[in-house]
Parts: sequence; C-alpha cells; structure tokens
Amino acid sequence: VGRRIGHVVLPHEQVIDLLAQAARDGRHVVRLKGGDPVVFGRGAEEALELARRGVSAELVPGISSAIAAPELAGIPLTHRGVASGFLVVTGQHAAGPGARVDWELAASFSGTLVILMGATRLAELLGTLCVHGRSPSTPAAIVQHAGRPEQRVLTGTVGNLPALADMAGIGTPAVVIVGEVVTLRERTRRHLEAPSERSDDACRSVRRRAVPSGVTGDQG
Amino acid sequence: VGRRIGHVVLPHEQVIDLLAQAARDGRHVVRLKGGDPVVFGRGAEEALELARRGVSAELVPGISSAIAAPELAGIPLTHRGVASGFLVVTGQHAAGPGARVDWELAASFSGTLVILMGATRLAELLGTLCVHGRSPSTPAAIVQHAGRPEQRVLTGTVGNLPALADMAGIGTPAVVIVGEVVTLRERTRRHLEAPSERSDDACRSVRRRAVPSGVTGDQG
Repeated sequence: VGRRIGHVVLPHEQVIDLLAQAARDGRHVVRLKGGDPVVFGRGAEEALELARRGVSAELVPGISSAIAAPELAGIPLTHRGVASGFLVVTGQHAAGPGARVDWELAASFSGTLVILMGATRLAELLGTLCVHGRSPSTPAAIVQHAGRPEQRVLTGTVGNLPALADMAGIGTPAVVIVGEVVTLRERTRRHLEAPSERSDDACRSVRRRAVPSGVTGDQG
Repeated sequence: VGRRIGHVVLPHEQVIDLLAQAARDGRHVVRLKGGDPVVFGRGAEEALELARRGVSAELVPGISSAIAAPELAGIPLTHRGVASGFLVVTGQHAAGPGARVDWELAASFSGTLVILMGATRLAELLGTLCVHGRSPSTPAAIVQHAGRPEQRVLTGTVGNLPALADMAGIGTPAVVIVGEVVTLRERTRRHLEAPSERSDDACRSVRRRAVPSGVTGDQG
C-alpha cells in the first residue's frame, strides 16, 4: 500500500482496516514504511489505532532519511567544531495557521537544521528562516532520491537554493539541510564514493537499507 | 575495536592507522560503529583523515539510538498534535566552557528533545533546562541498553528523573528524552510488544539492527 504526495492510493483509515483484518485472520502483518515509522511516519498513531481494534503491534526502527539523506550526500549531521546537534522538522507548513513548527527557534539554531517534506515550498521555508534572522549566506543543500541511482544533490545558500533547485527541477522526495556542515560536502565528496559511483551490488544494498521499496513519498 | 566511556581500548589515531594499513594491504575494511556514523560518531572525521592518507571511504547510514531508543521504549519522536519535530544534542557538556550546546534554545523547544551521552550527568543537564525556563513537570524518560534484552526504561519528569534514575542505578549507555511524547509510552506500552516480551527470533533481529554488536559505548 503505497502513497505519493497528492496521490493517495488508499485512505489511511482503510489501510488500518486492512491491517487489522489480516491480523484477525491469524496472519503476521508487516506495514512497511520508508524511513523510520516514528519520524513523521504516524507509526505510533497506527499502532494505537490497531490497539483500539484489539490488534497488538511492534514498532521496528528504520533508517530515517533525516539522517541518511544528508549522509549519502557527504554531509554529516554532526561534526566536531562545526555542529554538535541537529534539529529535524517538517516542512509541510511554513508560516500561517497550520504551522506547528517554531521557525523562529529553527532560524536561531546553531546546529544542523533538517527539513523533511519541504521540497515543494522551499522558497517559502527558507524565506521564513531569513525573516526570523537567519543569514541568507548560510550554507544549505537539498538531496533528492537519497540512496537511489538517480540521487541528486544541490548545494548553495539559504538565499539562492530555491532558485537553484527550481532551475534544476528538483522535486519530491527530497531532504533540505541548513547549516555549516553543508560545506563539508565539498571536502568529503572528493573522497567518498557516491551511490552512483558504487558497484551495482553495493548500490543495491545501500538502497535497500536507506529506502525500503514499496513505499514512496514517505519522508520519515 | 571497541570503546566504552572511560575505557579507551585503542587511541583514535591508532584506529585510523589500522584502517589505512589494512586498506593499503588491498583489503576492504569495515569500520563498524554502534548507531549511525554521522550522529556523534565522527564518521566524516574518520573518512577525511583516511582521505589524507590516500584511502577513500563510504559512509553507510545506520539506525541511530537517537530515534531507535525512544521508539523501542514506546515513545515516538513525532506524533500528530504532540510533537512535530525533534532536537538531538550531546549531553557530554552541560554548562561551562566545554558547552557547545545551546541549552537555552533546547529548553524552549516545543518538540521532542533527545540527549545522547547524558546519563552520567543527568541531574546537571535537566537542571540546566530548568534554569533556562523549562518546567520541572515536563515529562522525561531515560532508556538504557535500548533494544537489548536488558533494556530498562524509566519515565518521570524533568524534576524527578535524576533521582529516579539514581535510585534505579541506570547507567550508560542511555538515551534521555524530554517532551510530551513521553506520556504516549503509557498508552503504547500496553499494546506494543517490548523487546523482552518478543520471541527470541524477533528480539535478535531487532537487536541486530538497532545495536550492531562489537561496538559499545558509542551513542550515535
């Protein structure tokens, strides 16, 4: 049961029905998600909904694109003397009534800021950071299709990344990274093997771990 | 090549020497770390040090205890209407000249705060949050040995967790979680299978993914 932004294959409620029914039929059911089920994956929500229907569940940690996407692009979330922490937020709402993210706090954070599900409103999100005092010259990057052969990475600044991404036609799924660690990519990329440069075998194995197949659009 | 806090088995420099030498001998070398290599794991640092010695490397994402430890304790880092983001920091330095963490910002963050490597100075860290205005009644939890059969979880508040952990003798390695999501554990634990309640097979498989064996003490 997959989904893409804007293309709901099956309503969420029906997915739960399906899981509960299969479990009641005596089967062991795996609900496979991209990334980690509790990083914007509604994992606990689904487990609790299942519990209400008498079905117990287990949450199995996965590799979150919040960490893996920057890493596969040669951008470490933490690095001694550069960033000693990271903040992960959803980019689904920038300013406005739907915003539950404290963008003022995000703008003033000195570590690495990771924005998931923010590719479609990149200009609005990075603009919001600037409004709250973040310098437009802060290094920023966007990683699309992390871990896949078609992985694309763009680096720039908070000020120019939206235009760069627009020109390059970068779309979802993508992860946005803001902070000084982005500058490490230039140093690491010369020495790190990019997914597309790996042998097919290595590529497949990394891809399998980073982005389980069968689910697309989930950014957790 | 393992390490524990306070028990350095081999100096870091010698580990790099070892890796570089083995690679120069024509071998493929795997440097296995607990968790993810770029979440306080010095992964990029080691890759750059190796590059200086003419050895290229690949960073392979892992499952970070920052996400997996709370999750295995039934605490989702994000949950609709409760937390729409999370902040991960190191607890190795609280106040004082060594502190590169903005504890004032951490104290005012409305999402989930995750502190890695903070078990040994729990009272100091949570006290620092209070000094910066965090309410002592904020839910907080500590998870020791996440994913292992000996996993232990304590929940309480920012105010009482240090005393509870002290009484229970909770030590390293442990992950500290601060925020409203901690209260979800009581709801999820009734329905989620805890690692110790799982069949041996399931337990082994989760453990293998969450905490690669051979490395202890790393909290990334």
